[in-house]
Amino acid sequence: MSDHADATDGPAVRPLPAFEPPYYVVVFSSVRTPGDRGYGEAADRMDELVKEVPGYLGHESARNPGGLGITVSYFRDSAAIEQWRSVGEHRAVQKQGRAEWYERYTVHVAKVERSQEFERE
Amino acid sequence: MSDHADATDGPAVRPLPAFEPPYYVVVFSSVRTPGDRGYGEAADRMDELVKEVPGYLGHESARNPGGLGITVSYFRDSAAIEQWRSVGEHRAVQKQGRAEWYERYTVHVAKVERSQEFERE
Repeated sequence: MSDHADATDGPAVRPLPAFEPPYYVVVFSSVRTPGDRGYGEAADRMDELVKEVPGYLGHESARNPGGLGITVSYFRDSAAIEQWRSVGEHRAVQKQGRAEWYERYTVHVAKVERSQEFERE
Repeated sequence: MSDHADATDGPAVRPLPAFEPPYYVVVFSSVRTPGDRGYGEAADRMDELVKEVPGYLGHESARNPGGLGITVSYFRDSAAIEQWRSVGEHRAVQKQGRAEWYERYTVHVAKVERSQEFERE
Protein backbone atom coordinates (compact mmCIF):
# COMPACT_ATOMS: atom_id res chain seq x y z
CA MET A 1 0.00 0.00 0.00
CA SER A 2 0.97 3.59 -0.26
CA ASP A 3 1.79 6.87 1.31
CA HIS A 4 0.43 8.68 -1.70
CA ALA A 5 -2.95 9.99 -0.56
CA ASP A 6 -1.56 10.98 2.84
CA ALA A 7 0.64 13.66 1.34
CA THR A 8 -2.50 15.80 1.58
CA ASP A 9 -2.83 15.37 5.37
CA GLY A 10 -4.61 18.34 6.85
CA PRO A 11 -5.19 19.40 10.45
CA ALA A 12 -8.23 17.10 10.61
CA VAL A 13 -6.11 13.96 10.12
CA ARG A 14 -6.54 11.36 12.85
CA PRO A 15 -4.59 8.22 13.74
CA LEU A 16 -6.48 5.00 13.14
CA PRO A 17 -8.23 3.76 16.28
CA ALA A 18 -7.08 1.06 18.67
CA PHE A 19 -8.88 -1.99 17.30
CA GLU A 20 -9.96 -4.85 19.58
CA PRO A 21 -7.01 -7.27 20.02
CA PRO A 22 -5.93 -9.61 18.72
CA TYR A 23 -5.33 -8.26 15.23
CA TYR A 24 -2.34 -7.98 12.91
CA VAL A 25 -0.18 -5.10 11.76
CA VAL A 26 2.09 -5.08 8.72
CA VAL A 27 4.83 -2.44 9.11
CA PHE A 28 6.38 -1.38 5.79
CA SER A 29 9.38 0.99 6.08
CA SER A 30 10.84 2.19 2.80
CA VAL A 31 13.04 4.58 0.90
CA ARG A 32 11.79 5.49 -2.58
CA THR A 33 13.60 5.96 -5.85
CA PRO A 34 13.38 9.50 -7.33
CA GLY A 35 10.33 10.50 -9.36
CA ASP A 36 6.85 9.03 -9.57
CA ARG A 37 7.16 6.44 -12.40
CA GLY A 38 3.48 5.52 -12.08
CA TYR A 39 3.69 5.00 -8.32
CA GLY A 40 0.89 7.39 -7.38
CA GLU A 41 -1.64 5.85 -9.69
CA ALA A 42 -0.79 2.31 -8.59
CA ALA A 43 -0.91 3.35 -4.93
CA ASP A 44 -4.38 4.84 -5.33
CA ARG A 45 -5.55 1.63 -7.02
CA MET A 46 -4.14 -0.52 -4.18
CA ASP A 47 -5.83 1.76 -1.63
CA GLU A 48 -9.15 0.85 -3.25
CA LEU A 49 -8.40 -2.83 -3.91
CA VAL A 50 -7.37 -3.69 -0.34
CA LYS A 51 -10.77 -2.54 0.93
CA GLU A 52 -12.27 -5.61 -0.76
CA VAL A 53 -10.24 -7.98 1.43
CA PRO A 54 -12.38 -9.42 4.26
CA GLY A 55 -10.65 -8.66 7.56
CA TYR A 56 -8.85 -5.53 6.29
CA LEU A 57 -9.15 -2.92 9.07
CA GLY A 58 -7.30 0.10 7.66
CA HIS A 59 -3.89 1.57 6.94
CA GLU A 60 -2.05 4.85 7.44
CA SER A 61 1.23 6.27 6.19
CA ALA A 62 3.78 8.97 6.82
CA ARG A 63 6.91 9.96 4.93
CA ASN A 64 9.66 12.37 5.83
CA PRO A 65 10.14 14.71 2.86
CA GLY A 66 12.69 13.00 0.64
CA GLY A 67 13.35 10.35 3.26
CA LEU A 68 11.96 7.39 5.15
CA GLY A 69 8.33 6.34 4.74
CA ILE A 70 6.36 4.11 7.10
CA THR A 71 3.03 2.47 6.23
CA VAL A 72 1.17 0.43 8.85
CA SER A 73 -1.70 -1.78 7.66
CA TYR A 74 -4.11 -3.54 9.99
CA PHE A 75 -5.89 -6.85 9.44
CA ARG A 76 -8.16 -8.93 11.65
CA ASP A 77 -6.06 -12.09 11.29
CA SER A 78 -3.19 -13.64 9.38
CA ALA A 79 -5.61 -15.23 6.89
CA ALA A 80 -6.65 -11.74 5.78
CA ILE A 81 -2.99 -10.82 5.19
CA GLU A 82 -2.48 -14.00 3.16
CA GLN A 83 -5.54 -13.22 1.08
CA TRP A 84 -4.21 -9.72 0.32
CA ARG A 85 -0.80 -11.19 -0.56
CA SER A 86 -2.46 -13.56 -3.02
CA VAL A 87 -4.33 -10.91 -5.04
CA GLY A 88 -2.86 -11.01 -8.54
CA GLU A 89 -2.97 -7.28 -9.18
CA HIS A 90 -1.30 -6.66 -5.81
CA ARG A 91 1.46 -9.14 -6.57
CA ALA A 92 2.15 -7.43 -9.89
CA VAL A 93 2.41 -4.05 -8.16
CA GLN A 94 4.77 -5.46 -5.52
CA LYS A 95 7.00 -6.75 -8.30
CA GLN A 96 6.94 -3.35 -9.99
CA GLY A 97 7.81 -1.78 -6.63
CA ARG A 98 11.01 -3.82 -6.42
CA ALA A 99 11.81 -3.07 -10.06
CA GLU A 100 11.12 0.67 -10.03
CA TRP A 101 9.85 2.45 -6.93
CA TYR A 102 11.90 1.35 -3.92
CA GLU A 103 15.59 1.63 -3.12
CA ARG A 104 15.04 -0.57 -0.08
CA TYR A 105 12.36 -1.63 2.33
CA THR A 106 11.75 -3.76 5.39
CA VAL A 107 8.47 -5.52 6.22
CA HIS A 108 7.52 -6.69 9.73
CA VAL A 109 4.34 -8.78 10.26
CA ALA A 110 3.15 -8.76 13.86
CA LYS A 111 0.22 -9.81 16.05
CA VAL A 112 -1.13 -6.94 18.14
CA GLU A 113 -1.58 -7.90 21.77
CA ARG A 114 -2.75 -4.57 23.20
CA SER A 115 -3.48 -1.04 22.09
CA GLN A 116 -4.68 2.27 23.45
CA GLU A 117 -5.83 5.67 22.30
CA PHE A 118 -5.40 9.19 23.61
CA GLU A 119 -7.40 12.23 22.53
CA ARG A 120 -7.07 15.71 23.95
CA GLU A 121 -10.25 16.90 25.65
CA MET B 1 10.06 8.30 21.35
CA SER B 2 10.28 10.91 18.71
CA ASP B 3 10.25 11.89 15.10
CA HIS B 4 12.50 14.82 15.85
CA ALA B 5 15.92 13.72 14.62
CA ASP B 6 14.43 12.15 11.51
CA ALA B 7 13.36 15.51 10.14
CA THR B 8 16.92 15.62 8.83
CA ASP B 9 16.57 12.42 6.75
CA GLY B 10 18.91 12.52 3.81
CA PRO B 11 19.23 10.25 0.76
CA ALA B 12 21.43 7.88 2.81
CA VAL B 13 18.60 7.04 5.22
CA ARG B 14 17.86 3.32 5.50
CA PRO B 15 14.97 1.38 7.02
CA LEU B 16 15.89 -0.61 10.11
CA PRO B 17 16.75 -4.23 9.29
CA ALA B 18 14.51 -7.27 9.64
CA PHE B 19 15.51 -8.55 13.08
CA GLU B 20 15.37 -12.26 13.93
CA PRO B 21 11.80 -13.13 15.05
CA PRO B 22 10.26 -13.20 17.51
CA TYR B 23 10.60 -9.59 18.63
CA TYR B 24 8.18 -6.79 19.49
CA VAL B 25 7.15 -3.60 17.75
CA VAL B 26 5.43 -0.62 19.35
CA VAL B 27 3.56 1.42 16.74
CA PHE B 28 2.88 5.02 17.82
CA SER B 29 0.69 7.07 15.42
CA SER B 30 0.14 10.67 16.41
CA VAL B 31 -0.97 14.17 15.50
CA ARG B 32 0.96 16.95 17.21
CA THR B 33 -0.16 20.24 18.69
CA PRO B 34 1.30 23.36 16.98
CA GLY B 35 4.77 24.58 17.96
CA ASP B 36 7.65 22.86 19.69
CA ARG B 37 7.00 23.58 23.42
CA GLY B 38 10.16 21.72 24.43
CA TYR B 39 9.28 18.64 22.39
CA GLY B 40 12.50 18.49 20.37
CA GLU B 41 14.77 18.60 23.39
CA ALA B 42 12.75 15.94 25.22
CA ALA B 43 12.67 13.75 22.12
CA ASP B 44 16.44 13.91 21.74
CA ARG B 45 16.83 12.96 25.40
CA MET B 46 14.48 9.97 25.02
CA ASP B 47 16.39 8.87 21.90
CA GLU B 48 19.47 8.59 24.10
CA LEU B 49 17.78 7.15 27.19
CA VAL B 50 16.06 4.26 25.42
CA LYS B 51 19.43 2.97 24.22
CA GLU B 52 20.18 2.02 27.84
CA VAL B 53 17.24 -0.43 27.95
CA PRO B 54 18.46 -4.03 27.51
CA GLY B 55 16.58 -5.58 24.59
CA TYR B 56 15.98 -2.27 22.78
CA LEU B 57 16.65 -2.93 19.08
CA GLY B 58 16.00 0.44 17.44
CA HIS B 59 13.31 2.86 16.30
CA GLU B 60 12.45 4.92 13.24
CA SER B 61 9.95 7.67 12.51
CA ALA B 62 8.25 9.51 9.71
CA ARG B 63 5.85 12.45 9.72
CA ASN B 64 3.82 14.00 6.92
CA PRO B 65 4.49 17.73 7.01
CA GLY B 66 1.88 19.17 9.36
CA GLY B 67 0.10 15.83 9.59
CA LEU B 68 0.28 12.26 10.81
CA GLY B 69 3.46 10.90 12.38
CA ILE B 70 4.33 7.22 12.83
CA THR B 71 7.12 5.95 15.09
CA VAL B 72 7.91 2.23 15.24
CA SER B 73 10.13 0.99 18.08
CA TYR B 74 11.57 -2.51 18.24
CA PHE B 75 12.36 -4.55 21.36
CA ARG B 76 13.58 -8.10 21.82
CA ASP B 77 10.71 -9.07 24.15
CA SER B 78 7.80 -7.67 26.15
CA ALA B 79 9.97 -7.43 29.27
CA ALA B 80 12.14 -4.85 27.51
CA ILE B 81 9.03 -2.80 26.66
CA GLU B 82 7.90 -2.96 30.28
CA GLN B 83 11.31 -1.82 31.45
CA TRP B 84 11.18 1.17 29.11
CA ARG B 85 7.65 1.98 30.30
CA SER B 86 8.87 1.96 33.90
CA VAL B 87 11.71 4.49 33.44
CA GLY B 88 10.76 7.51 35.54
CA GLU B 89 12.07 10.14 33.16
CA HIS B 90 10.22 8.45 30.30
CA ARG B 91 6.98 8.39 32.29
CA ALA B 92 7.29 12.09 33.02
CA VAL B 93 7.80 12.84 29.32
CA GLN B 94 4.79 10.72 28.36
CA LYS B 95 2.68 12.72 30.81
CA GLN B 96 3.98 15.97 29.31
CA GLY B 97 3.14 14.62 25.87
CA ARG B 98 -0.50 14.19 26.82
CA ALA B 99 -0.54 17.62 28.45
CA GLU B 100 1.20 19.59 25.70
CA TRP B 101 2.51 17.89 22.57
CA TYR B 102 -0.18 15.58 21.18
CA GLU B 103 -3.69 16.23 19.95
CA ARG B 104 -4.25 12.48 19.74
CA TYR B 105 -2.37 9.26 19.38
CA THR B 106 -2.84 5.52 19.12
CA VAL B 107 -0.38 2.89 20.39
CA HIS B 108 -0.31 -0.73 19.18
CA VAL B 109 2.00 -3.28 20.85
CA ALA B 110 2.62 -6.36 18.70
CA LYS B 111 4.78 -9.47 18.51
CA VAL B 112 6.61 -9.79 15.20
CA GLU B 113 6.24 -13.23 13.65
CA ARG B 114 8.12 -12.71 10.39
CA SER B 115 10.01 -10.02 8.54
CA GLN B 116 11.92 -9.48 5.33
CA GLU B 117 14.17 -6.95 3.65
CA PHE B 118 14.62 -5.77 0.11
CA GLU B 119 17.55 -3.76 -1.23
CA ARG B 120 18.04 -2.72 -4.82
CA GLU B 121 21.15 -4.23 -6.37
